[in-house]
Amino acid sequence: MAVSDEGMWLLNDPPRTLLKEKYGYELTEEWLQRAMKASVRLNSGGSGGFVSPEGLLVTNHHVAADAVQKLSKPGVDLYHNGFYAARREEELKCLDLEVNVLQEIVDVTAEVNAAVKEGMTPAQAAAARRAVMSRIEKESLDRTGLRSDVVTLYNGGAYHLYRYKKYTDVRLVFSPEKAIAGFGGDVDNFEFPRYCLDVAFFRVYEDGKPAKTPHFFRWSATGPQEGDLVFVTGHPGTTQRLETWARLRHRRDLTLPYSLSRLRALEAALLQYSEEHPEKRRQAVADLHGVANARKAFTGQLQGLLTPAILEQKRQQEEELLAAARQRGLPTADAERALETIARVQEQLRTFEKEYALIEGGHAFASPLFLIARHCVRLAEELPKPSSERLREYRDSNLDSLKLSLFSPAPLYPELEQARLRTSLLFLAENLGGDHEIVRKVLAGKNPADRAAELIAGTRLFDPQERRKLVEGGQAAIEASQDSMIQLARSIDPIARQLRQRYETEVEEPERQAYAALAALRFAVYGRSIPPDATFTLRLAFGTVRGYQAEGQNIPWHTTIGQLFTRYDSLGGREPFTLPPRWLEHRRRLDPETPLNFVSTADTIGGNSGSPVLNRAGELVGVNFDRNRYGLVRNFVYTDVQARHIAVHSRAVLEALRKVYAAESLLQELTQH
Amino acid sequence: MAVSDEGMWLLNDPPRTLLKEKYGYELTEEWLQRAMKASVRLNSGGSGGFVSPEGLLVTNHHVAADAVQKLSKPGVDLYHNGFYAARREEELKCLDLEVNVLQEIVDVTAEVNAAVKEGMTPAQAAAARRAVMSRIEKESLDRTGLRSDVVTLYNGGAYHLYRYKKYTDVRLVFSPEKAIAGFGGDVDNFEFPRYCLDVAFFRVYEDGKPAKTPHFFRWSATGPQEGDLVFVTGHPGTTQRLETWARLRHRRDLTLPYSLSRLRALEAALLQYSEEHPEKRRQAVADLHGVANARKAFTGQLQGLLTPAILEQKRQQEEELLAAARQRGLPTADAERALETIARVQEQLRTFEKEYALIEGGHAFASPLFLIARHCVRLAEELPKPSSERLREYRDSNLDSLKLSLFSPAPLYPELEQARLRTSLLFLAENLGGDHEIVRKVLAGKNPADRAAELIAGTRLFDPQERRKLVEGGQAAIEASQDSMIQLARSIDPIARQLRQRYETEVEEPERQAYAALAALRFAVYGRSIPPDATFTLRLAFGTVRGYQAEGQNIPWHTTIGQLFTRYDSLGGREPFTLPPRWLEHRRRLDPETPLNFVSTADTIGGNSGSPVLNRAGELVGVNFDRNRYGLVRNFVYTDVQARHIAVHSRAVLEALRKVYAAESLLQELTQH
Repeated sequence: MAVSDEGMWLLNDPPRTLLKEKYGYELTEEWLQRAMKASVRLNSGGSGGFVSPEGLLVTNHHVAADAVQKLSKPGVDLYHNGFYAARREEELKCLDLEVNVLQEIVDVTAEVNAAVKEGMTPAQAAAARRAVMSRIEKESLDRTGLRSDVVTLYNGGAYHLYRYKKYTDVRLVFSPEKAIAGFGGDVDNFEFPRYCLDVAFFRVYEDGKPAKTPHFFRWSATGPQEGDLVFVTGHPGTTQRLETWARLRHRRDLTLPYSLSRLRALEAALLQYSEEHPEKRRQAVADLHGVANARKAFTGQLQGLLTPAILEQKRQQEEELLAAARQRGLPTADAERALETIARVQEQLRTFEKEYALIEGGHAFASPLFLIARHCVRLAEELPKPSSERLREYRDSNLDSLKLSLFSPAPLYPELEQARLRTSLLFLAENLGGDHEIVRKVLAGKNPADRAAELIAGTRLFDPQERRKLVEGGQAAIEASQDSMIQLARSIDPIARQLRQRYETEVEEPERQAYAALAALRFAVYGRSIPPDATFTLRLAFGTVRGYQAEGQNIPWHTTIGQLFTRYDSLGGREPFTLPPRWLEHRRRLDPETPLNFVSTADTIGGNSGSPVLNRAGELVGVNFDRNRYGLVRNFVYTDVQARHIAVHSRAVLEALRKVYAAESLLQELTQH
Repeated sequence: MAVSDEGMWLLNDPPRTLLKEKYGYELTEEWLQRAMKASVRLNSGGSGGFVSPEGLLVTNHHVAADAVQKLSKPGVDLYHNGFYAARREEELKCLDLEVNVLQEIVDVTAEVNAAVKEGMTPAQAAAARRAVMSRIEKESLDRTGLRSDVVTLYNGGAYHLYRYKKYTDVRLVFSPEKAIAGFGGDVDNFEFPRYCLDVAFFRVYEDGKPAKTPHFFRWSATGPQEGDLVFVTGHPGTTQRLETWARLRHRRDLTLPYSLSRLRALEAALLQYSEEHPEKRRQAVADLHGVANARKAFTGQLQGLLTPAILEQKRQQEEELLAAARQRGLPTADAERALETIARVQEQLRTFEKEYALIEGGHAFASPLFLIARHCVRLAEELPKPSSERLREYRDSNLDSLKLSLFSPAPLYPELEQARLRTSLLFLAENLGGDHEIVRKVLAGKNPADRAAELIAGTRLFDPQERRKLVEGGQAAIEASQDSMIQLARSIDPIARQLRQRYETEVEEPERQAYAALAALRFAVYGRSIPPDATFTLRLAFGTVRGYQAEGQNIPWHTTIGQLFTRYDSLGGREPFTLPPRWLEHRRRLDPETPLNFVSTADTIGGNSGSPVLNRAGELVGVNFDRNRYGLVRNFVYTDVQARHIAVHSRAVLEALRKVYAAESLLQELTQH
């Protein structure tokens, strides 16, 4: 099937044959080992790669945004103004950033599936599966000391154990100004041609010293040329290419409209808040960009699913699979039943999906304060249980990472949290109606605005010490707490757990079993030629550096620094087309011919942000940061006709570090190997 | 009931007794006649008042925005930069602005109700009612030459014929810069303290000369003082104070969430479009402010309906009415049945309200081009019928006004219309789902983005001559038309008409009959002490100029020009807190003590924008332009505890015209009488 450059391939099942046949390229074990151990995942939701043996890593500015924003405060706006540590001592320790580096993958499919016995109810099956996965993770953690996650692949077709080295002392080395990192803002987002220096550098530390990272990518001083074969290693978040036609229709008609509606409400609230005062703008700006990015991505997905040809292609693929199986004399009854099951599950899901997303998903409470309160409440209830019986996020193997974020001293601003909460409580009422039992319980006799004000005024969870006290105090502390947010989290927890239970037994488990049946038939018919959907785990993609045609025009494979300034000049320097003072000042020194951004056909999706783009030799030639509008349907289908991922060219980074930022020590570290 | 300053009173049923008892004020016939004939309504959706005998009228800048925007073009941005005609010859003729001035009200309730006979089906009753209303209007138009509208009051409790003098030659005299007219933008909208010069002046012409307007309001050079009794004459749009509990719950749980979701989508689209280029911003800016204003108003309404006390009060009022009636021995069976009917109607309405709003309401096609196409298509079908059998908007009495707008040369921008259409087509699919028959018909095998591009590329309706040709060509021209928008309007017209028919017979007519029964009982119990809900017809409100307390602070009754500059200084001159260069230049000349905006308890709502605020002597002391956040629930309940309407102080206008704009001729015209 994958005759194109399609595929976010597993590192333990790479497309050797494909690469050999199509590109004459021999994937070596050494190349793969470096790709695995030099690629990193950030808990803020993106990818990156080591670029020196001393723990230096590159990612995107927009992936770093969360950490950079948390290091900012009134009067010190690192997000807007950028940051550079010329010396190690000046590197800024992030408040709650975690970096994971994959060390090993073990296939545990048989063990996981063996736990589910014939005749179990979905609830029993889900529990059994949860228990075995938890046991595998716990054993691995105890034995190796590595973060250990069992990952569900093929929506339930396979289970692999991923072992990661984990860094929690991560320091900011370099971050450019937002204006150049995200030049063009929401207007240019998911568009090409493009002109962004969307990079940032961190360094991981161990025991207070820069970590040794012998696996790293050499920084290419020349970067790629048109026609080059390139690779992207990173952590694509989620795709839905193997989902059934029925599931995708459900996404089109329910999930995505709901999500868009939610994001629009939140984006509007953040925009309105930002307008009130420059300091409020500073507080909300990184969030706002994140929400706007999601809104644009989801809009593209929905446009894709509303393109009749795309859904029709999905329906045909299902028919083709069955037809191909029959032709080979393979039994198709299980797969047919699976398709029916998945269709039936969607009917079930539509009856409570919004409630599930609003309450257990937390969309009704769009403030970190609520999530903090929920963690406190649930930790008190979960920790006394054996690890394997806890909710997934409270298993022993997850506790360290959870506490890193729960006790983070990252600043929270009462007015901002109130604005977010007011909006999401209103959104709750809009979706369920004012008389809905949950709405009445949550609003407690007030309207959403008054209730949000009351909740923010009545909580002390802004202070990490309060959170620590509550967690250390266990169930007794929770029960005695007068904190408004704790009380809210407690009061709805029974409903939230019930919704989660329903989701797991009525949706997740039946779907897992059904997708396992489909995967089995697909393997039987097509072999392993189709990689699993993305799961925010390390994948390898490959493609060709190549322009494309759009609206009758040839779009070249790259842009230049000179073109950046041309666009700046033509748009009058108004937001989102401003440039930092430093860039205007040093404009004449920069070589206008320097390639700035480029595109390739490699298969990426959200989560791949910050991914190293590598050449045949395994050198870093670019940093992936986006895809173009034609790539927005990649959740569902891959094509290489117009869809491209977009990367910062490795030369542009060197040029900027040298001539705009005079970042000599960073430059030296990047180029000395 | 109305013991407070509540009430948007009918001019033919003014609150004489109330005013006498509460304020010792004697409402004279002369005062009332002037109030009626000097108050004006603008077809762009606001109010105003004549302020000279030579046709000069004042309204809000935001009411004038539509006309001002249509007079702007690339490079000539009157909306942003303001406009002043020092001489009559320089006054700019508006492209499609119509001004109505009420001349007479006739009660035709008996005649309208007599047309509906016992035993008629709702469809028959609706048709009979439509026919008699149309006949009354036609006869009035033929006899008087005045625009004649039968207005439904008390949601069906009474019918009055309103006769208006109509002006279609309306010219722009003065409009300040957007930055001072709407200082504080969306942030300060519906807030007080406030600092806006939200005024504009037009002049109506007849036969190419300034119209004689002997009824006008003298401009007060002193303005109001705290504690003064003031009056507001204007055209409040809609209120829902007499709607039943069941109807309001439906609004809370369905209508308002739907509307908010729609407005957020549209606002986001306009914002994103505006960011792309300064010229695009110019094109979209007035629209954007209108949408943001509606979004904020609807949000306030929904917060209000989600305040349990407010709905509870409504429920109690229904019980109280019935109890009071029983106590007086009045029969309550009709009213009780009416309450049940209205509750049942809501159940019915929820099954097709979105389809009705999207298709017949046009929300799926948020471009004037679609409305133009629909008018062309429907005119061809409706005009051959007798006037009384046509859809309401195509009756003879409405045709002139319709054609003024249909053939308007106001500019439309393809890219803007495409952005709007793309958004609303997506919104259609989000609401009804991709497989819905209507969605498939509208999208015609494309996704919303591609379909919008195709529709815009395929229409010539940007050109008013094309519209004229189609209308003159009648049914044959429509059937032969290859215009994409005409074909779209044609293809969905059967469905649209069917939805309208359902709405009229399943919702409108049963509600009219039910509300008539409720109104009858209310009259019997409480007399005429409760004015009808607002209907965008002329009303009289009154109140006291008075500050209030909010969040523990005393909010004074007015702001000053000095405070405007203080706020400007403290917010760094960033949008929406910028000031026009002229204001900064003349800052020192302005008297900082000049009152700028003030509040009173008078009862207003959207549509009252631009309303004259009058003193006892009938002089104009202010121009109403907004209400504060506490007034956002006025759709449902009136209180005078914190809710206030907000007006520009008459002195501020004189001060600005003199010292900032040097508008001598306008000043002289305002002050010479």
